[in-house]
Amino acid sequence: MKAEISKAIDRGNYIKYPLFERELPEGSYAQIVEIKPKSRVGKHYHKFQYELFYIISGEAKLGIGNEEYHAKPGDIYLVKPGDVHWVENNSEESFKLLVVKLNFRGEDTVWL
Amino acid sequence: MKAEISKAIDRGNYIKYPLFERELPEGSYAQIVEIKPKSRVGKHYHKFQYELFYIISGEAKLGIGNEEYHAKPGDIYLVKPGDVHWVENNSEESFKLLVVKLNFRGEDTVWL
Repeated sequence: MKAEISKAIDRGNYIKYPLFERELPEGSYAQIVEIKPKSRVGKHYHKFQYELFYIISGEAKLGIGNEEYHAKPGDIYLVKPGDVHWVENNSEESFKLLVVKLNFRGEDTVWL
Repeated sequence: MKAEISKAIDRGNYIKYPLFERELPEGSYAQIVEIKPKSRVGKHYHKFQYELFYIISGEAKLGIGNEEYHAKPGDIYLVKPGDVHWVENNSEESFKLLVVKLNFRGEDTVWL
């Protein structure tokens, strides 16, 4: 089946578009995340879930653990449980990425 | 961590580039798959694994179950266990996609 965006969850600084809700196996979750221009997602980590990022469009500073990346379309990143991560989009364009969560047991975000 | 392509597994008609080997949690697997120009991957299905596809570049005919798609960059697809699927790249360009396997218990492909 092909993904169809049917829902947008606006969190102010970013918008989440869930994918294949009720279709994916237990322990996984997928969404597109769009971080708005001149917006950031603050430092946080997850207790259990892994996050796989595929950068779709835009550019942003992406911090994962002690590393800071200049993230660009086509880049792929992995965030492991406990890895503190953050995004800073200083551009005039949205920063869009596919996020696939693995070992997902529900909301487990810890904001710093 | 950022993905680095360190290995290419050439299957003749396509090439697989595993991602984050030994880094992902049990039950998952990630790779980039490049289907060569004028090449196809024949009908097959998986017994247990789900496959999430993000199309990176190129265009191809993609069959999933009874549906046939003209797959293009940015498209996202889900293949569920038992869904017969195939790819036909009739173009002069490679067809590249990110494949994330969920509920992955090892090789479980059945070729038709």
